[in-house]
Amino acid sequence: MNILLIGYGAMNQRVARLAESAGHKIVAVIPNRQHEDIPYPIVNEISEATEADVAIDFSHPNLLLPLLEQSFHLPLVIATTGEKDTITTKLQSLSEKMSVFFSANMSYGVHVLTKLLEVAVPLLEQYDIELTEAHHNQKVDAPSGTLVKLYDVIEQLRDNVQPVYDRSQLTEKREKNEIGIHSLRGGTIVGEHDVLFAGVDETITLSHSAQSKDIFANGALKAAEKLVHKSPGYYTFDNL
Amino acid sequence: MNILLIGYGAMNQRVARLAESAGHKIVAVIPNRQHEDIPYPIVNEISEATEADVAIDFSHPNLLLPLLEQSFHLPLVIATTGEKDTITTKLQSLSEKMSVFFSANMSYGVHVLTKLLEVAVPLLEQYDIELTEAHHNQKVDAPSGTLVKLYDVIEQLRDNVQPVYDRSQLTEKREKNEIGIHSLRGGTIVGEHDVLFAGVDETITLSHSAQSKDIFANGALKAAEKLVHKSPGYYTFDNL
Amino acid sequence: MNILLIGYGAMNQRVARLAESAGHKIVAVIPNRQHEDIPYPIVNEISEATEADVAIDFSHPNLLLPLLEQSFHLPLVIATTGEKDTITTKLQSLSEKMSVFFSANMSYGVHVLTKLLEVAVPLLEQYDIELTEAHHNQKVDAPSGTLVKLYDVIEQLRDNVQPVYDRSQLTEKREKNEIGIHSLRGGTIVGEHDVLFAGVDETITLSHSAQSKDIFANGALKAAEKLVHKSPGYYTFDNL
Amino acid sequence: MNILLIGYGAMNQRVARLAESAGHKIVAVIPNRQHEDIPYPIVNEISEATEADVAIDFSHPNLLLPLLEQSFHLPLVIATTGEKDTITTKLQSLSEKMSVFFSANMSYGVHVLTKLLEVAVPLLEQYDIELTEAHHNQKVDAPSGTLVKLYDVIEQLRDNVQPVYDRSQLTEKREKNEIGIHSLRGGTIVGEHDVLFAGVDETITLSHSAQSKDIFANGALKAAEKLVHKSPGYYTFDNL
Repeated sequence: MNILLIGYGAMNQRVARLAESAGHKIVAVIPNRQHEDIPYPIVNEISEATEADVAIDFSHPNLLLPLLEQSFHLPLVIATTGEKDTITTKLQSLSEKMSVFFSANMSYGVHVLTKLLEVAVPLLEQYDIELTEAHHNQKVDAPSGTLVKLYDVIEQLRDNVQPVYDRSQLTEKREKNEIGIHSLRGGTIVGEHDVLFAGVDETITLSHSAQSKDIFANGALKAAEKLVHKSPGYYTFDNL
Repeated sequence: MNILLIGYGAMNQRVARLAESAGHKIVAVIPNRQHEDIPYPIVNEISEATEADVAIDFSHPNLLLPLLEQSFHLPLVIATTGEKDTITTKLQSLSEKMSVFFSANMSYGVHVLTKLLEVAVPLLEQYDIELTEAHHNQKVDAPSGTLVKLYDVIEQLRDNVQPVYDRSQLTEKREKNEIGIHSLRGGTIVGEHDVLFAGVDETITLSHSAQSKDIFANGALKAAEKLVHKSPGYYTFDNL
Repeated sequence: MNILLIGYGAMNQRVARLAESAGHKIVAVIPNRQHEDIPYPIVNEISEATEADVAIDFSHPNLLLPLLEQSFHLPLVIATTGEKDTITTKLQSLSEKMSVFFSANMSYGVHVLTKLLEVAVPLLEQYDIELTEAHHNQKVDAPSGTLVKLYDVIEQLRDNVQPVYDRSQLTEKREKNEIGIHSLRGGTIVGEHDVLFAGVDETITLSHSAQSKDIFANGALKAAEKLVHKSPGYYTFDNL
Repeated sequence: MNILLIGYGAMNQRVARLAESAGHKIVAVIPNRQHEDIPYPIVNEISEATEADVAIDFSHPNLLLPLLEQSFHLPLVIATTGEKDTITTKLQSLSEKMSVFFSANMSYGVHVLTKLLEVAVPLLEQYDIELTEAHHNQKVDAPSGTLVKLYDVIEQLRDNVQPVYDRSQLTEKREKNEIGIHSLRGGTIVGEHDVLFAGVDETITLSHSAQSKDIFANGALKAAEKLVHKSPGYYTFDNL
């Protein structure tokens, strides 16, 4: 598979390494900014990568959106976060002519966790839900984007939920509609997410643990491998 | 709700306690054997419990099966384990005239865990599965009945699976179709069950933890509360 | 062993039940307030319980402190929380004439967890520490008293630590001296406490899980069993 | 710090990468066998590495033992497993003239776990102990060497312990002196070890989780950094 990389930050550098060790070829890169040491041909537009079978994007709306306005025809795996509505609207339009895959989180395991949540939340409507994530000590934001995604799934399935980030200032019993949110930070933890359902005398916990950020690069690569065999359309993990 | 108890072992004694604290009434008991101190009216046949709205059974095939051959008309919640095929065939037949609920495991949380497994196993077909349970140090059998139930769900969804109970005698890589089974025993642990899905650089774990055997009694009671409002039919957690 | 109970709230009712099933005898109770249904002789002063071998207290400073001012001679197991300094000073003074046991947390397992922390914190001085506890949804305070006790152990062993209760309002990297504190609430969870040490590419976790509040009653009872054989002095879990 | 590597297998290749990114220099390698692509000067004897400040060994007794018989003077960090008695006897002898560090497991976190076990086992003598480890699906041996090390610590502190690898063939209650041993295998798990202490109504768990094999390389590197400042002697994690 010949791959065009859109962006050449930390994630697409992983994609390059994993792609090559899986026998694929990086035929071109559209970098976000000037790097001195990109070991692949540089192009400025998607259409210039004439040998590419697929494009894999881990970049920013600033780079990606102008590229999508240009004329081209190539299967796209898009992982840029931010300006989600603008991007997905544009991708929907492009998907009439080419196959397009989009996910805000390229980890297949996290995707499965969201599918399990969609089953669990309605079945466990009497159970209290608490969300916990753990990441390395250099992460500046909290909670993690993945936790927010899990919360969004719950919010669509349970009425009037309210996030609670800090109970130390309260002296009140937990309300049914609260969702406690807990962000642990320490060491080099890659990413842990737990969803606790606590009921009368029993608990159910759904957990995802990432050992390496390669799961995101691999998720994009696996999606690309499938996408190149698909007819035009808009794909996600749900229908790929 | 007026309840007839079939059997008066440890589980139905819990049912009695929890039922009364929830405002229900135990109107009769069909004991498995002579107890000296049953604080409720004793009857010998289901039809004798004329005031009962529902029967809850935690007994044995030896007690239950002859009772089911007699003439009666009462919603039934049946939790007897053993001779499952004979019992469910009989219950199917009775369900034409009355509402009948059957489950080999009355914990609603364990039921939900099996539903989650049915979703997870097909989605995670490339992931290795390992099952772990922990119970108190007085338990004589291993693995637990609940773990066997979880294994059965997996076996129906993944081809050629093989249980592996002990790797210490092997010096071989794990085969894809193996399902490791691990039974921890210690202290007074009520019941923990973990299903591990291990893939490339990520794991997903589904866990159930029981804090008290009350979950089984409560599960039967909740089923009874719903069953008394149902039309005749055969019910499980899936359709109640 | 003949026991005087000081206080007859939920905890000492558990002590009574567990003591009797272990073959001990409750010979008297000094109730905190009038109960209608105390099934034991009521006394008003410790010295009135002439048959007692030991007193077990789970009460309040308001009840306990005046009692300690009276004249008596009896081994004491004291679990009252609040006004700790006043109580321990008084107990130190009494310990010249009788054996006295005091602990703000009667769970032996929690005590062991604090001893493990005393070893772990100095050995893992480069590791980030995060504390997590989970309790039932009726608990009104957070974090739990046990978590505070664990934090106190860490604070004595690591310089300048700062508790952090909520990272969702921050966009900063974790500082070395932060101790994240997380209080989960849900269902009927009795009590879980985790201490996470996160370093480079590895984590160590110390966990305590309580299945029943009986651990506190049992801890007091075990302490009493040992205390009655001790010479006068001030005892804790460290020297009993 | 100038480093001589003894062996150039997977572990010492990690040491080289981590050492260089920490500002150290690999000045020579004594390879176990001919590699085509060792990017460092090759030497055959320790004494040839005249610029080295320290040697780090991850090799085999076949390579290491003959080298130790030769004449040289260099601080040594030795991680070879196998023929432990022969190697440590030789190192003891060498330690009269130079500083020598030996550990069968270079992970500092695992070392700390063993120190915690030494405290926990005597304090929790009434608790049942179960050991669980999890590793990737390519590992051919079970249980892991680290689990065996943990078992050895317990064996020295508790009388008559017996390992139990498989309870599925037994229908007996757990005996007090049993130590259940459980080896999970799946995906790419780097290494998880849990020690469960299960008592009456409470459990304590000590866990170690490795995210990367770098912990072993880093452990050796950290030991080397300290060792070069030490006077001659035999060092382990306990006295470094």
